[in-house]
Amino acid sequence: MANEPPQTKPRIILDENGKPCRTCNTLEDFQSATGRLFNNIKSATSLAIAGVALEKIPGSKTYYKEDPPDIRKLGASSWTFLHTMSAKYPQQPTPREKDDMKSFLNIFSRVYPCDWCAKDFEKYIRENAPKVESREELSRWMCEAHNSVNRKLNKEEFDCNFWQQRWKDGWDDPETK
Amino acid sequence: MANEPPQTKPRIILDENGKPCRTCNTLEDFQSATGRLFNNIKSATSLAIAGVALEKIPGSKTYYKEDPPDIRKLGASSWTFLHTMSAKYPQQPTPREKDDMKSFLNIFSRVYPCDWCAKDFEKYIRENAPKVESREELSRWMCEAHNSVNRKLNKEEFDCNFWQQRWKDGWDDPETK
Repeated sequence: MANEPPQTKPRIILDENGKPCRTCNTLEDFQSATGRLFNNIKSATSLAIAGVALEKIPGSKTYYKEDPPDIRKLGASSWTFLHTMSAKYPQQPTPREKDDMKSFLNIFSRVYPCDWCAKDFEKYIRENAPKVESREELSRWMCEAHNSVNRKLNKEEFDCNFWQQRWKDGWDDPETK
Repeated sequence: MANEPPQTKPRIILDENGKPCRTCNTLEDFQSATGRLFNNIKSATSLAIAGVALEKIPGSKTYYKEDPPDIRKLGASSWTFLHTMSAKYPQQPTPREKDDMKSFLNIFSRVYPCDWCAKDFEKYIRENAPKVESREELSRWMCEAHNSVNRKLNKEEFDCNFWQQRWKDGWDDPETK
């Protein structure tokens, strides 16, 4: 099925040119398929901690030869953006803000740079229309959308009652304790 | 000006309720303004390396009490998504794909969850219309957009000739070496 990754292991998703796709595979699978190293760093500090010596980009004082994100890093980055966006969505959105959010999520499901993830998200949206009437509604909808992915990956589901602490106020805000 | 952060230091951006805004400030500024700790972790592994003991969320086996992203983590996550999206944009997009991308970037500049960053991006788009005719064009446009932010933050500009290695193929792909 086009909207699910192959079920056999190691599962390597290929890109449009038949080459292993970085953003559709974990770095471990990508490395085992290509035999190439995958430099996925967070910062020079992480590098130092990990004891990895990465080269700098020619002509640059501060940029290392960091590789493109794999499917996990892309996913974590994108969820960080999506949950934070939801947590900042207006409590009482205007009709335009509601339309904007619906359009945004629809287009997101077409431009997300991992094809099978995008198709999965498109299907989820089709079956579970985004709830955009309020910040609380959208944030819980997004949490449930993320949990549907967690279930597919056999990851623990996040307790959506904590969305506000996780994505808006933190855990030691006296008002949400 | 609404689209620029205050120029005095320490600069603390407040949210709609007059409280320090997490996603509009660095974690250091947020901490100094609120006196509250800010648990911005990447993974349990990073935690162990850093020697930090974070509590788990009540009832959860795997989720720690990680705090909402600050402006830097939100920015890095969002750029990771945007650059990767650009690097996967079609080489010869259809009219619908071009319209999608233009709409997406316009809405993005309204829903980005840091108000002054969003207004800055909106202004940038107004003065530098997104180039959506091809993957190469969009990826370079995105790189320039990021550099305009790098300049404001007094960070080194990224050499956009390397967009493909950084966001698509990696640094050791024989075809782009």
